[in-house]
Amino acid sequence: MWVDPFPDFTPEKPLFICILANTGTARIPNISAAGKSPGLTDYTPAADAELVETGNAISLKEPAMCPSGAPTPAVLTRASVLLTGIPCIYIDAGLNVKPKVPFVDMNARPGQDIRTGKAVADPVGIYENACMLGKSIGKLSDCVIIGESVPGGTTTALGVMRALGYDGRVSSSFPDNPVGIKEAAVNEGMNNAGISFGSLENDPLRAVQCLGDPMMPVAAGLVDGLGVNTVLAGGTQMVSVLTIIKALGLERDVSIATTSYVANDPTANFSEMTDMLGFRAYVADPGFGASRVKGLKMYEKGDVKEGVGAGGAMFAAAMKGISRKEFREKVEEVYESTSVNKNS
Amino acid sequence: MWVDPFPDFTPEKPLFICILANTGTARIPNISAAGKSPGLTDYTPAADAELVETGNAISLKEPAMCPSGAPTPAVLTRASVLLTGIPCIYIDAGLNVKPKVPFVDMNARPGQDIRTGKAVADPVGIYENACMLGKSIGKLSDCVIIGESVPGGTTTALGVMRALGYDGRVSSSFPDNPVGIKEAAVNEGMNNAGISFGSLENDPLRAVQCLGDPMMPVAAGLVDGLGVNTVLAGGTQMVSVLTIIKALGLERDVSIATTSYVANDPTANFSEMTDMLGFRAYVADPGFGASRVKGLKMYEKGDVKEGVGAGGAMFAAAMKGISRKEFREKVEEVYESTSVNKNS
Repeated sequence: MWVDPFPDFTPEKPLFICILANTGTARIPNISAAGKSPGLTDYTPAADAELVETGNAISLKEPAMCPSGAPTPAVLTRASVLLTGIPCIYIDAGLNVKPKVPFVDMNARPGQDIRTGKAVADPVGIYENACMLGKSIGKLSDCVIIGESVPGGTTTALGVMRALGYDGRVSSSFPDNPVGIKEAAVNEGMNNAGISFGSLENDPLRAVQCLGDPMMPVAAGLVDGLGVNTVLAGGTQMVSVLTIIKALGLERDVSIATTSYVANDPTANFSEMTDMLGFRAYVADPGFGASRVKGLKMYEKGDVKEGVGAGGAMFAAAMKGISRKEFREKVEEVYESTSVNKNS
Repeated sequence: MWVDPFPDFTPEKPLFICILANTGTARIPNISAAGKSPGLTDYTPAADAELVETGNAISLKEPAMCPSGAPTPAVLTRASVLLTGIPCIYIDAGLNVKPKVPFVDMNARPGQDIRTGKAVADPVGIYENACMLGKSIGKLSDCVIIGESVPGGTTTALGVMRALGYDGRVSSSFPDNPVGIKEAAVNEGMNNAGISFGSLENDPLRAVQCLGDPMMPVAAGLVDGLGVNTVLAGGTQMVSVLTIIKALGLERDVSIATTSYVANDPTANFSEMTDMLGFRAYVADPGFGASRVKGLKMYEKGDVKEGVGAGGAMFAAAMKGISRKEFREKVEEVYESTSVNKNS
């Protein structure tokens, strides 16, 4: 298998959830590759949802790309949705630009630049709303795979893990991880919030309030409410959600799935963190080195790496018996059909 | 049984959906009792969703009541949710006031006063979005019960049925149905839209555009996309959705469930219409004459009658083996716990 499946479980009603949020942190120059330019990162989550749902990034005038030209990981998630037939629900956890497909509104506002030390308004209220939604969804689905699209989200992940006392090193959508820029942003935010490494280890939602992003309390609240098998689909951003879940003392059936690009990123410590936290991790390798598409080959060189639940989407495809080759060919098909945006 | 169940089907994953919308039509004086005053009808759908989900009409400063003092039918739906454990999803089909619980945003705007003849913007886009959402939900649930909270909605129902060529007579949340006011509003809208009785019989979404409300294309689009057993939970407003479904030529597994108060309303013709249209109708009588609560006894005198999917909520309760007496007692409990609003 190109991804190991669940050892002893075959879901009957699996569901993807994609949590969408903006944070002012993405506008720090050179911090995020999730958009052609920092200003355009506002559009990325909405466009990702549109691409997964319809095959077309309606809100973008040009193809949904990183500055390098590599395609958004939404094409991987779209491929999995098409191959598996698993439905996807989109959650607005605080967006500047709303998607043009149906989405769940959580009454959450976009996150602020974490350098202010005041990153997320009312994380407790957001968490409670997500828990409420999770309780409803948990009555319908027996396996929920939760991804995210949050440009700037590895920096907020770094901030939260530091505040909780973890030396979590985060990955990047750039081949060359701008670690120094992220560290500086986190340090400035910690100073402005009056907190230090580990000082909020018993108050994870306060850590989110100071240094996180609004995706985090939605993901953690969903896990709380769902009460069914849940897979966090993402890299080091979802590792930060695991640290929150752990600090809250939630006992749930949770695992994490990511791409080999994140798991093998030497600037991050994905596997070390998931091992230490004690959550099962699934790692999926789409084998894009064998792709005929240049933009996908760029993933092998460290562009993009993960996002929009791509790792979990591959896990779901493997779970449904789809081979790596079938998956890669579907990704190529999706990529080629969306690379000239039909609404532009 | 106090409601007949499905003749040959026991759902495993039932779901309530409550479609929420405002229309300027509700501000016509004396047309709707769904709010203490015409201006307050803007708050009614949001408060109904909050009451069903949390037991508390958060957005209202005073209890969710009609001018007469009878309680919103959301208390019936809340009782059913508590007794059956069936989850409920709320859809914003065009609201002036958003609920403070999670809800699905359909990118729809509130409806305009139908006297303008321009009632709903982009009903085709709304329909397509709802169909998209329905396809996802239909993969999770095997029986969807769709209610609505749309103050002024029987007048828009009248308008659409006339445009489609039906002598559909609509019910009212007032004991004394203001038929003359509704007729005048519909006639003015027809004149301004340049249409006449039956002139849009082959173009039901155009009828919605001229004289309907945005709940209608959401309900019809959901039915289209869901592809599973669907119960429209409502009175003559949902009959108008049946006329739209029929005119669209949709062949789906659809029935309708309402209260005995609507079915027995001599100013309306619920049963005649459902018989003629050829859809199975379920009628539920909560027996509020035996209630110790004055506000509920008022239902027996023609106040409120239906709304927020109350008829379908009773159908679901009966389907789950709940007796009429158990249901009535739970409604009394919900009513009494919410009648002094805790947030005021």
